[in-house]
Amino acid sequence: MGQQKTGVAASPGIAVGKAKVYSSHTVHTPQYQVDDTAAEIERFTRAVSASADDLLSLEAKVSAELGPDEAKLMEAHRLILQDPEFTGSVTSHIETDAINAEAALRVVSDSLIALFESMDNEYMRGRAADIADITSRVMAQLLGLDYGFNAGNDTDMILVAKDLHPSDTVQLDLSRVKGFVTDVGGRTSHTAIMARTRGIPAIVGLGDVSETVSDGTPLIVDGSNGLLIVNPSNEEVARYLEQAQIDAARAEQLHALIHESSVTLDGHQVELAANIGVPGDAVIGVAHGAEGVGLFRSEFLFMNRDSLPSEEEQFQAYQEAVQTLDGKPVIIRTMDIGGDKSLDYLQLPAELNPFLGYRAIRISLDREDMFKTQLRAILRASHYGRVKVMYPMIATRDEVVAANEVLEAAKQELRSEGIPFDEDMEVGIMVEIPAAAIAADQLAEVVDFFSIGTNDLIQYTMACDRMNEKVSYLYQPYHPSILRLVKMVIDAAHQHGKWAGMCGEMAGDLNIVPVLVGLGIDELSMSPPSILPVREQIRQSRFEDLQELAAEALRQSTSDAVKNLVVQATD
Amino acid sequence: MGQQKTGVAASPGIAVGKAKVYSSHTVHTPQYQVDDTAAEIERFTRAVSASADDLLSLEAKVSAELGPDEAKLMEAHRLILQDPEFTGSVTSHIETDAINAEAALRVVSDSLIALFESMDNEYMRGRAADIADITSRVMAQLLGLDYGFNAGNDTDMILVAKDLHPSDTVQLDLSRVKGFVTDVGGRTSHTAIMARTRGIPAIVGLGDVSETVSDGTPLIVDGSNGLLIVNPSNEEVARYLEQAQIDAARAEQLHALIHESSVTLDGHQVELAANIGVPGDAVIGVAHGAEGVGLFRSEFLFMNRDSLPSEEEQFQAYQEAVQTLDGKPVIIRTMDIGGDKSLDYLQLPAELNPFLGYRAIRISLDREDMFKTQLRAILRASHYGRVKVMYPMIATRDEVVAANEVLEAAKQELRSEGIPFDEDMEVGIMVEIPAAAIAADQLAEVVDFFSIGTNDLIQYTMACDRMNEKVSYLYQPYHPSILRLVKMVIDAAHQHGKWAGMCGEMAGDLNIVPVLVGLGIDELSMSPPSILPVREQIRQSRFEDLQELAAEALRQSTSDAVKNLVVQATD
Repeated sequence: MGQQKTGVAASPGIAVGKAKVYSSHTVHTPQYQVDDTAAEIERFTRAVSASADDLLSLEAKVSAELGPDEAKLMEAHRLILQDPEFTGSVTSHIETDAINAEAALRVVSDSLIALFESMDNEYMRGRAADIADITSRVMAQLLGLDYGFNAGNDTDMILVAKDLHPSDTVQLDLSRVKGFVTDVGGRTSHTAIMARTRGIPAIVGLGDVSETVSDGTPLIVDGSNGLLIVNPSNEEVARYLEQAQIDAARAEQLHALIHESSVTLDGHQVELAANIGVPGDAVIGVAHGAEGVGLFRSEFLFMNRDSLPSEEEQFQAYQEAVQTLDGKPVIIRTMDIGGDKSLDYLQLPAELNPFLGYRAIRISLDREDMFKTQLRAILRASHYGRVKVMYPMIATRDEVVAANEVLEAAKQELRSEGIPFDEDMEVGIMVEIPAAAIAADQLAEVVDFFSIGTNDLIQYTMACDRMNEKVSYLYQPYHPSILRLVKMVIDAAHQHGKWAGMCGEMAGDLNIVPVLVGLGIDELSMSPPSILPVREQIRQSRFEDLQELAAEALRQSTSDAVKNLVVQATD
Repeated sequence: MGQQKTGVAASPGIAVGKAKVYSSHTVHTPQYQVDDTAAEIERFTRAVSASADDLLSLEAKVSAELGPDEAKLMEAHRLILQDPEFTGSVTSHIETDAINAEAALRVVSDSLIALFESMDNEYMRGRAADIADITSRVMAQLLGLDYGFNAGNDTDMILVAKDLHPSDTVQLDLSRVKGFVTDVGGRTSHTAIMARTRGIPAIVGLGDVSETVSDGTPLIVDGSNGLLIVNPSNEEVARYLEQAQIDAARAEQLHALIHESSVTLDGHQVELAANIGVPGDAVIGVAHGAEGVGLFRSEFLFMNRDSLPSEEEQFQAYQEAVQTLDGKPVIIRTMDIGGDKSLDYLQLPAELNPFLGYRAIRISLDREDMFKTQLRAILRASHYGRVKVMYPMIATRDEVVAANEVLEAAKQELRSEGIPFDEDMEVGIMVEIPAAAIAADQLAEVVDFFSIGTNDLIQYTMACDRMNEKVSYLYQPYHPSILRLVKMVIDAAHQHGKWAGMCGEMAGDLNIVPVLVGLGIDELSMSPPSILPVREQIRQSRFEDLQELAAEALRQSTSDAVKNLVVQATD
């Protein structure tokens, strides 16, 4: 039996092959004083320019091979590289400290990486890899080293690395890579996302695998379970190969549904949409058969920077996602900062109970300037596809009215400036605060749609912080009160001729989806990999049965009773 | 016009009189080394013993003059004085540091006072005064000084002090004291509570009044508004005296209702009960016409100490309140620690969102030993009157079932030990988590009653921490969702033949009480001074009208609309 190592299950599936260790670009950074800082800045500028050119060629190659969306990663790197903030920091270090370009680049890079890694947010920690990638690329240029990777001719290659940067993986012939394993990274690192998009099994966060495994070592990657087997026995290889075949057949089966509608056997249709975090994720959603974007978290625009994003920046990001969806709906949620997502430049107050504090729409309504800028950008993007706007953390009808007043002001401005937008853009709210669910009928009078945000709704309804291990057992999605609130919201919407969706984690939970559909949910928005399994389930169900199941679920008085019921039903 | 100073409105009413400045007992504490520590300990022990004797005489005097409840304050001081933990700390300082008794007492006292004052809880900060009081008393004994206060023969005396300790005020002929004003203290300090009980106007937390006002200075105390007027004009005196007359007439009018029932003109009866914090508060409740105790917060037993209270200690505290109520119901809530109430000796974890964390029943169910001890004490007290037990922070039916299992185990133990208790003791829950309100019908199957805890219910339902000034505007008791939850709970109780009360601040709000009664609430438990005004309001109303008002309130879609409606109705 081989040695087992457990990491983060970053991309599902099984890979059997041999290790190809990808050594880190981390080289010793030379450090010395320079007299002619102007010449040194010139040398740095040339390296940046050459790196940007490389990235531009890569973009073209990737766009042709992997599609325009994945090229966006290269473009993003190129934009960071050409951002005067970034290069300016380096040149100012060269000038002020009279040091060489490599040393200055290292200082700036290290501090940015440290900043990202210190953030209490997996997504932002993942962004540290972008900076490391860009730095390695420019560093290689400065030092006259090759940047890139020669994969050789192996065809059963499992790439082993400390970390993999997007521009590493993109230069590979991915058809020859069977799997990825890395020392660091989380589920939302670029490597993990890219692996999932490409359907390549991956395990990240394995600790020290790149140091303990050498080229040619036989490996089994069980990406679904985050399990790596080093030097597996023949029996293990045989067993996993068999499972891989079953998985492949299953994937093919699901893939056949990619352009099918999500409709029950008796003709009841539900829209299955994707939750996305950055515009580039939209293509992943589409690749998984999303019929739209049900939740575009706009926070990414506000994080990872030291000032508010401009209207133009926001517009471009929204426009990109809207155009990727090509006429399919995109619901953009206005920023949900606060709670566990802080922003230094907004100087949010320290709070005793941040989840019950100043966040999301509460900040937006308090900072009307910021809010109107975002609404203008969303309105402008609405001209390029089918955009809907959604306000987060709505507790009262007054808040909707106030937000709509700012929206109307933004529309007036655009009209008078002659800037086109969709005059009929739908306006909805997240229903994630109990008060909003309980008074949903009254809110339905002033919105076009609801999207139930179960993650927060459950936390508030049960009065438990799911991240708090002492009480996380009370985070009960199947609790009767949660199902009742969901029903209240759906019924209230339908009574007013509006629609109701869901964008919390519950929306992709195969155990409870039959109940949600049975309750009449119109749309389910989830992480892209959940879409096809949910679609398959819906297509195999009868709406009548699901309605009956939902009614039965509502009669239960404990979470366990509901769970038993739904698990039996989906077995 | 006189000079105005604003403080904490500690006891309502108007007093016009002359300042009698009560100088602090703070004397210079002598500090020196002692050789014979045993003799010094002996000197300290004698001082403690003499102080305890004084307190015992005081107790008898107070009990006779003010009633046994107020004597409990003296008894509490005496118990602290005789607590080996307290005296042991002092003697150990004498021994270890070879210092005199005064110095050792000062060290122990200062550290305890600092501890209490640092607590983020008004009640506990109020306890610092107890320690200061005890210390002054013993210090006076040690130094051979008089302890006490000679009020002279003035009859329009307004007592001005840095702080007033219970044993200061108790030695006064209170019939000659027209008002109290102090530099420090909060609404729950002993002085404030005693002033309210005796109906003497008081302002606390005035800052430096004891230093800026001298004996004989004319003062007006507007205790309802926390306003002190120093050297008032004749016109001001006349105006306030007139108001005082109106107030007195009003108080007399209310006092006439003290033994009346709380019944509408058309015969619908509601029970008005008192919220109390310590057993001694029970008598205050009764003095205000309470028909029972609707919420006895048992936390006090767990705070202000360094280990869990024994079953016996708890039993005695519960029994005292139960006997004071003399057959009227007393609802004892099991401990609600956690959230903003921490206990060092329980080593509760630091939490990101304590209001959504490990608290109340969640701790009790996790610490069954501690919980069973409390339940045994409550059961034992149930033998001496009409006790009901109530679990706080219930979110699920499972929790009620689990808590009842511990209760049953406690009963079994008592039965086998031959200890009597009320076999039919009612068991209820606080409904303060949205999940409990939404699934109240299912909970009604396993409890005898509900008590709606509006303070927390509003916070969770609106997802806002009321102590957070950035979002406190969202703490909306009149929000449609809150009224709907209240209705759900009442209806669920009645459908199952159970009763529903309320013990949050809303229960004493004259604007909303008509709506609550109209919704069918069976019991309202509030701070004692609110009871008689609420009773008067109910007695002047027709239940039919209130039902109509409640229905109309439920049709409103914003807090403001509800507020306008109820304010109009009560005008």
